[in-house]
Amino acid sequence: MNHAELRAELHALHLELPKNSLVTWTSGNISARVDGGLLIKPSGVTFAELTPESMVATDLDAQVIEGDLSPSSDTATHAYIYRHLPDVGGIVHTHSPYATAWAATGHAIPCVLTAMADEFGGPVPCGSFAPIGGADIGQEVVRVLKGHRSPAIILQSHGVFTIGKTPLAALKAAVMVEDVARTVFLACQLAAARGVEVQTLAPADIDRLHHRYTHVYGQHQETP
Amino acid sequence: MNHAELRAELHALHLELPKNSLVTWTSGNISARVDGGLLIKPSGVTFAELTPESMVATDLDAQVIEGDLSPSSDTATHAYIYRHLPDVGGIVHTHSPYATAWAATGHAIPCVLTAMADEFGGPVPCGSFAPIGGADIGQEVVRVLKGHRSPAIILQSHGVFTIGKTPLAALKAAVMVEDVARTVFLACQLAAARGVEVQTLAPADIDRLHHRYTHVYGQHQETP
Amino acid sequence: MNHAELRAELHALHLELPKNSLVTWTSGNISARVDGGLLIKPSGVTFAELTPESMVATDLDAQVIEGDLSPSSDTATHAYIYRHLPDVGGIVHTHSPYATAWAATGHAIPCVLTAMADEFGGPVPCGSFAPIGGADIGQEVVRVLKGHRSPAIILQSHGVFTIGKTPLAALKAAVMVEDVARTVFLACQLAAARGVEVQTLAPADIDRLHHRYTHVYGQHQETP
Amino acid sequence: MNHAELRAELHALHLELPKNSLVTWTSGNISARVDGGLLIKPSGVTFAELTPESMVATDLDAQVIEGDLSPSSDTATHAYIYRHLPDVGGIVHTHSPYATAWAATGHAIPCVLTAMADEFGGPVPCGSFAPIGGADIGQEVVRVLKGHRSPAIILQSHGVFTIGKTPLAALKAAVMVEDVARTVFLACQLAAARGVEVQTLAPADIDRLHHRYTHVYGQHQETP
Repeated sequence: MNHAELRAELHALHLELPKNSLVTWTSGNISARVDGGLLIKPSGVTFAELTPESMVATDLDAQVIEGDLSPSSDTATHAYIYRHLPDVGGIVHTHSPYATAWAATGHAIPCVLTAMADEFGGPVPCGSFAPIGGADIGQEVVRVLKGHRSPAIILQSHGVFTIGKTPLAALKAAVMVEDVARTVFLACQLAAARGVEVQTLAPADIDRLHHRYTHVYGQHQETP
Repeated sequence: MNHAELRAELHALHLELPKNSLVTWTSGNISARVDGGLLIKPSGVTFAELTPESMVATDLDAQVIEGDLSPSSDTATHAYIYRHLPDVGGIVHTHSPYATAWAATGHAIPCVLTAMADEFGGPVPCGSFAPIGGADIGQEVVRVLKGHRSPAIILQSHGVFTIGKTPLAALKAAVMVEDVARTVFLACQLAAARGVEVQTLAPADIDRLHHRYTHVYGQHQETP
Repeated sequence: MNHAELRAELHALHLELPKNSLVTWTSGNISARVDGGLLIKPSGVTFAELTPESMVATDLDAQVIEGDLSPSSDTATHAYIYRHLPDVGGIVHTHSPYATAWAATGHAIPCVLTAMADEFGGPVPCGSFAPIGGADIGQEVVRVLKGHRSPAIILQSHGVFTIGKTPLAALKAAVMVEDVARTVFLACQLAAARGVEVQTLAPADIDRLHHRYTHVYGQHQETP
Repeated sequence: MNHAELRAELHALHLELPKNSLVTWTSGNISARVDGGLLIKPSGVTFAELTPESMVATDLDAQVIEGDLSPSSDTATHAYIYRHLPDVGGIVHTHSPYATAWAATGHAIPCVLTAMADEFGGPVPCGSFAPIGGADIGQEVVRVLKGHRSPAIILQSHGVFTIGKTPLAALKAAVMVEDVARTVFLACQLAAARGVEVQTLAPADIDRLHHRYTHVYGQHQETP
């Protein structure tokens, strides 16, 4: 995929963020790894104003290579993750409401749904609070997600980062983390209101579900 | 209805799932009974990518008869239900959020609304946890729904299955179960927050409402 | 307005019900008073299938005058209200989720917002449980709303009825009752979670707000 | 920008209110400062009926200068704010549900999210209850927001006012206040249900985040 195609894809993926109610106004961004750097949303631009051409290319020190606009103020975070996690090809950042509510309490989202075992292979971990704009958040993301099955992390008092082999895979994780954050939220409310318990999933069941989802689920032949 | 028409209808019904906010990304599926088997969604395909032609035909042992793609990883569950409930012509499976929140607590949704008495004739029952991908879930669905007035079941830690004489009837049940799961959730929250009680419906009232809905409500002449 | 125009208007108003998330599948209905009777939604028909021509005309004993379909199974309720409240020209019935959650607890929605004082002039009252299909619900609606400033009532374990001089006015009340039911629900949840109180509005303030809204607010000259 | 352009812009911004689920039926309004006065929504008109020409021009005593319709019944409030806060060029008023739920409890929204530190520089303050239609609300808005970093205030038992250098900036604040009101609501519910705490942000972190957002974030060169 050349840069023009990647800009078009990254633009199209950004439009999925408001469509899935994951972002508000200009917040949230997606990046894609490219040779020698990354391509990312410009800072403070609304999703309606975005164009393929407005995406900004930077190197892995977050220095602009190509683009008329300033890159996302989270660019140093994305760059740090790409430098330290070589398998990552795409990153998504949002303040999606349910996941961010969990982040505001500083607690991981417990793995109590088969859909969570499938996609995340366990709880969605919560990283410590870190200042925005520098390498700190990147360090926390890498520290927590390295060797973890979850492609998503929530960051205390802040929001969500997800990673994937491609920007599309990271987007999927961002959509799914909000979905399960909401359902588990609702389950916790219901349990508290009715004096019952949210049922736990046994670790062996989580392992089996995650293995099935990552090895059996989906299309394993080439789809036309 | 021939296979081409049924594929078109099944595709159209699948599009109702995201439209009614019952599914996220690729999760959820609908099947229709056909002569000697069933027609079902392919595995791991997003709703936007679905086409009538992508629907997969299998026999009632879940072996593919026709189709280029792998069928839903829930196909063995659907097949089991069709084998054991001869009146069922359509099945819907979702992880719709409110119903799944009830499932996460492992408790049935109590019948406290006239709309529940109408459609479900009582509580929406909750089945035990069962592993995904084999006959186990199908066995649990059949065990609980056989002889039950409810066309819907929630499965602990997992989600929703609904059955109907047609795929459309099963879809209606899937839409209605999420609707009442939400309203009863809200009622429980309100009652807990205000120190009051959710009012119960008398069994005789539930019976009368269900009888009226299934015998009087709707159009009983042929509609043009 | 002749019958054809009224059918077109009533059809258009029905489409506002799903657009405002007040109804699910076939539930909910609107009627308009006409000379010698009423015009109402047919029973068990989805909103997408409705047409102006499908609306059913009945007399005030709920007997069909014109129309190929069976009228809403709530027609006797609407007819009773028109017989006993001569100023009412339109009626809306829904199971909108937040208002119905209040109804499930059997408690009125307290008047704690200026928007409630404006539109309802006080709490939204809750009527007793009554069986569906006959005059019972109509009697309860008339008993509670006669002489009440609120154009909306919630009915225990069931849903909402709203009345107005026109079907449009009743629709507005149905939209507003769900809106305030949601906001007051959220306020009660927040108060309970944080150990604070929902603030009350003084009766004199409610009176002043309601007078302003019904006498000053809006356009009192003829609008072009 | 001449008056015709400003009317068109103000009309377009009004359409963002229902699109962002901030308003219901006719409630909510936006104004823009113009030479010698302001331009504002007409009273009691639905958003679908609005046109650029229907916007009403008044002087800063809320007397109509131009327009066939009566101006918003909140015009005196807007006029008071423009008279006392010379930097304000646009004002938005809504009853958006989550922010209004906070207002119903009479408590400020605590600053517990980086997105709140960014946009509001601290908690969103709550003003006292004041009658609608006169200068009282304006006085409360000015008293609380003068010298405050927050462009938004919630008013007890009522709703939200936001201010900005332009109507667009005020709209952004109205969108963001509902967004954070919702996320902090969810966090409080989650904390109460699970017996944990919503994490606080240190004042120094709030200051740093607000400085970064207002000085570094976004595009500081001229964008083409």
